[in-house]
Amino acid sequence: MAAFAKNQWYVAAYSDEIGRELLGRTILGEPIVFYRAEGDGAVVALADRCVHRRFPLSESRLDGDTIVCGYHGFTYDTTGACVYVPGQKRIPRTARVGAYPVVEQDTLVWVWIGDAEPADAKTIPRAPHLGDPAWTTVRGMEPIDADYGLLVDNLLDLSHETYLHGGYIGTPEVAETPISTEVDEGAAIVRVSRHMDDAACPPFYAKSTGIEGRISRWQDIEYFAPCLYLLHSRIVPVGAPPPGPDGEDSHAFHTEITYAITPSAEGKVYDFWAVSRDFAVDDEEVTEFLHAFNHKVVMQDVDALNLLQKVLADEPEGYQELSINIDTGGLAARRILARLAG
Amino acid sequence: MAAFAKNQWYVAAYSDEIGRELLGRTILGEPIVFYRAEGDGAVVALADRCVHRRFPLSESRLDGDTIVCGYHGFTYDTTGACVYVPGQKRIPRTARVGAYPVVEQDTLVWVWIGDAEPADAKTIPRAPHLGDPAWTTVRGMEPIDADYGLLVDNLLDLSHETYLHGGYIGTPEVAETPISTEVDEGAAIVRVSRHMDDAACPPFYAKSTGIEGRISRWQDIEYFAPCLYLLHSRIVPVGAPPPGPDGEDSHAFHTEITYAITPSAEGKVYDFWAVSRDFAVDDEEVTEFLHAFNHKVVMQDVDALNLLQKVLADEPEGYQELSINIDTGGLAARRILARLAG
Amino acid sequence: MAAFAKNQWYVAAYSDEIGRELLGRTILGEPIVFYRAEGDGAVVALADRCVHRRFPLSESRLDGDTIVCGYHGFTYDTTGACVYVPGQKRIPRTARVGAYPVVEQDTLVWVWIGDAEPADAKTIPRAPHLGDPAWTTVRGMEPIDADYGLLVDNLLDLSHETYLHGGYIGTPEVAETPISTEVDEGAAIVRVSRHMDDAACPPFYAKSTGIEGRISRWQDIEYFAPCLYLLHSRIVPVGAPPPGPDGEDSHAFHTEITYAITPSAEGKVYDFWAVSRDFAVDDEEVTEFLHAFNHKVVMQDVDALNLLQKVLADEPEGYQELSINIDTGGLAARRILARLAG
Repeated sequence: MAAFAKNQWYVAAYSDEIGRELLGRTILGEPIVFYRAEGDGAVVALADRCVHRRFPLSESRLDGDTIVCGYHGFTYDTTGACVYVPGQKRIPRTARVGAYPVVEQDTLVWVWIGDAEPADAKTIPRAPHLGDPAWTTVRGMEPIDADYGLLVDNLLDLSHETYLHGGYIGTPEVAETPISTEVDEGAAIVRVSRHMDDAACPPFYAKSTGIEGRISRWQDIEYFAPCLYLLHSRIVPVGAPPPGPDGEDSHAFHTEITYAITPSAEGKVYDFWAVSRDFAVDDEEVTEFLHAFNHKVVMQDVDALNLLQKVLADEPEGYQELSINIDTGGLAARRILARLAG
Repeated sequence: MAAFAKNQWYVAAYSDEIGRELLGRTILGEPIVFYRAEGDGAVVALADRCVHRRFPLSESRLDGDTIVCGYHGFTYDTTGACVYVPGQKRIPRTARVGAYPVVEQDTLVWVWIGDAEPADAKTIPRAPHLGDPAWTTVRGMEPIDADYGLLVDNLLDLSHETYLHGGYIGTPEVAETPISTEVDEGAAIVRVSRHMDDAACPPFYAKSTGIEGRISRWQDIEYFAPCLYLLHSRIVPVGAPPPGPDGEDSHAFHTEITYAITPSAEGKVYDFWAVSRDFAVDDEEVTEFLHAFNHKVVMQDVDALNLLQKVLADEPEGYQELSINIDTGGLAARRILARLAG
Repeated sequence: MAAFAKNQWYVAAYSDEIGRELLGRTILGEPIVFYRAEGDGAVVALADRCVHRRFPLSESRLDGDTIVCGYHGFTYDTTGACVYVPGQKRIPRTARVGAYPVVEQDTLVWVWIGDAEPADAKTIPRAPHLGDPAWTTVRGMEPIDADYGLLVDNLLDLSHETYLHGGYIGTPEVAETPISTEVDEGAAIVRVSRHMDDAACPPFYAKSTGIEGRISRWQDIEYFAPCLYLLHSRIVPVGAPPPGPDGEDSHAFHTEITYAITPSAEGKVYDFWAVSRDFAVDDEEVTEFLHAFNHKVVMQDVDALNLLQKVLADEPEGYQELSINIDTGGLAARRILARLAG
């Protein structure tokens, strides 16, 4: 099992998932309740267990900006301080639940998990396309009953597109084309690139771009351990020029595929996924197609990882894997995660 | 987890649950099969595992007053002695299942769990209203997937009525009004009282009594550890006189709320509940209302405790609770139960 | 729990279950994928876990006689050698999954489980009636969530027919009639016989043979540990002569009831069952009746053993069974299995 890396920022939710309904999520084994304050609309993140008898506050209700435990009414403000207990006036000094540092950025709600002072919000990796009106995004979140390390493995080795996602996003060229991998151990970033000069166009791109023939397809992964994964995808008809020296590339179709990989509990992970495009941005049909189609692709991964988790649980201890070139990125990610987990 | 207190009487069933159909219940981890003998109608309680291959006798059938194992036909009489085995005449001397001492009283079937001689039946706490024609009773039993200690906690701290059962039996005054607690350590009895002089009348009482305004509401709990819980409830319109010096109180509405808290297995408890009233005793509509309404209230507890059990199972070891005045009765009950569990 | 006896042949499937669809079965805890090669139709049995990331090959697809992993495309030939990996030309020398020795015989697919050289196929016990056109067979397979030892117990003590299968295959005489048991420790064979001279005819035989009165009913069990169980059943109307000195017995109705008892994983067993008859062999109605009726009988066992497994899991350690004469065969089987398990 991949150990949890504490003292890191993690994506807890999409911004629009958090409002005046209480939302409970478990992150790195810590149950947290989220809501948005009435005044400034700031996201509040509190430990999701009443100090009295451990009842989940996410099963409770808001009273203004305070949260009232649904069992015996212990009431907490946005800092986690208890402001009311039943049957007496005096509130015990220790009546307080933990509050979590939160940063909202790029339509994502990041939460700091760990005992150390939170790292500067500026260190949180960016996914600006998610909030940029020049891009149109479809997205979702699937909980998977699998070690988060299995999802990291999955995303860093896209050769599986050919087999697990054949007929959706995979074609033979993905598995056939060698990758190049670049690891920045210090910054905890893994980059995996695969540039296919002449590849079949899978339905995902054929239907969204309208391209009918073969394509040049570039996949450039950036994984910012532990949580954020970006797949920069560039598609052009075969023979179209590469980006200009100044980066000019307006004739290409760009897709940013974003994943946030948030460990929930042991053997459980939240799989946040988003597909952003810079073409046909107002075309509702393309939007609906990409949402439904990518959801199917994600569910293929979910099913495979749920299965793999069960399979691995039954493996005898000390079972062996065999790794090859395609695993270079995944192995680097594991190494970095092990280091971050300390 | 609350340890099991052995060498105690426990409620196994309502009298009318036991007849000529075999009934299997697990009490303090001991599987027991119950039935009623043809002749004197006495309740028989035997260990629910055939001595041969441990098949549950509750999945078997009666032949007169003997019970015939559904797997290979080993047959037991009401004392648990084996009287027939297949394929041979000789019955092994050790072929016998345990028989449990049983007492029927107040429409409850009590069973003695433990190796010691059973305590005198006279020590079993009484709930005479359950069998008294001057009272009308509605009742039920819900198995809960929770430590029985969580149900004891729940019932001894009624401030939760305001929050978990708001709009049913709870009003703000329940949580606001301080309690007085009296503990008889020797007799293993905890008494918790809350007298509200001027309180809103919750739907439970408004609809059953017809009172339209505010009420005086007395809640007097008697918990006879480990199993029997009585809540003596007295309701009158605000301003009505208290009971007379001779106890005369016929102008008040009395409700006896009875719980039997019977640990089944680890993390499982039988929640026997009954609501008895001394008013509108022949009013079918009130009877139906109270049955349906209190069942909803019980299910609110069941859902909360099922959830709490899961939550606590995931808590890191050594988690802390915070207790306040309202918990005085519950903490006393825990202390007594720990002592009884030895 | 009965330990697994390794280095033995086990029934993995019926011959016609294995074709060009991948079939995954777990035998003695080892996941195995089965398919039939295109050319010679030989059964291929490979370890069901890709060497790369342990994905189940049974969730993959065939490409000719190679199997292509559904996750990243690692491809194996019928010997288990890897012949393709994605993204590179060089195939690591250690890329190979285990292949299992297989024997097809009597419409059964036997697989050798263990590290030792497989025992000569000639040592595999025979069930020739299964493939003999002079017999008509109905059959099925039920997975049971129970220790395989519980199924061995069940089948070696047929006195349970009277109780668990009363009204189907059991009559009082089965439980009443003593058995004779013969144990060949060296050959690991247990024989249990019960000859009833004058017995009621249960519906199973009344409806299939047309006999209306009482019968002589012989049950001769041969259990070839660990996997194959044969029940030779002979039925004639009461008073009909026994087999002639030369074995001539054409006036009797013979039924061969075959079980293969294949441990799957801990607490899981495959229950292969077949009923073969030498009478009314072309009568479709009898065939349909016996298939449906025996399936019900098998499901009575399945339900009982699923229940028993749960019951035993909750028994305190060191619980005691009581064994009597009817258990002689079952106890001998346990002893042999313990020896085979080493």
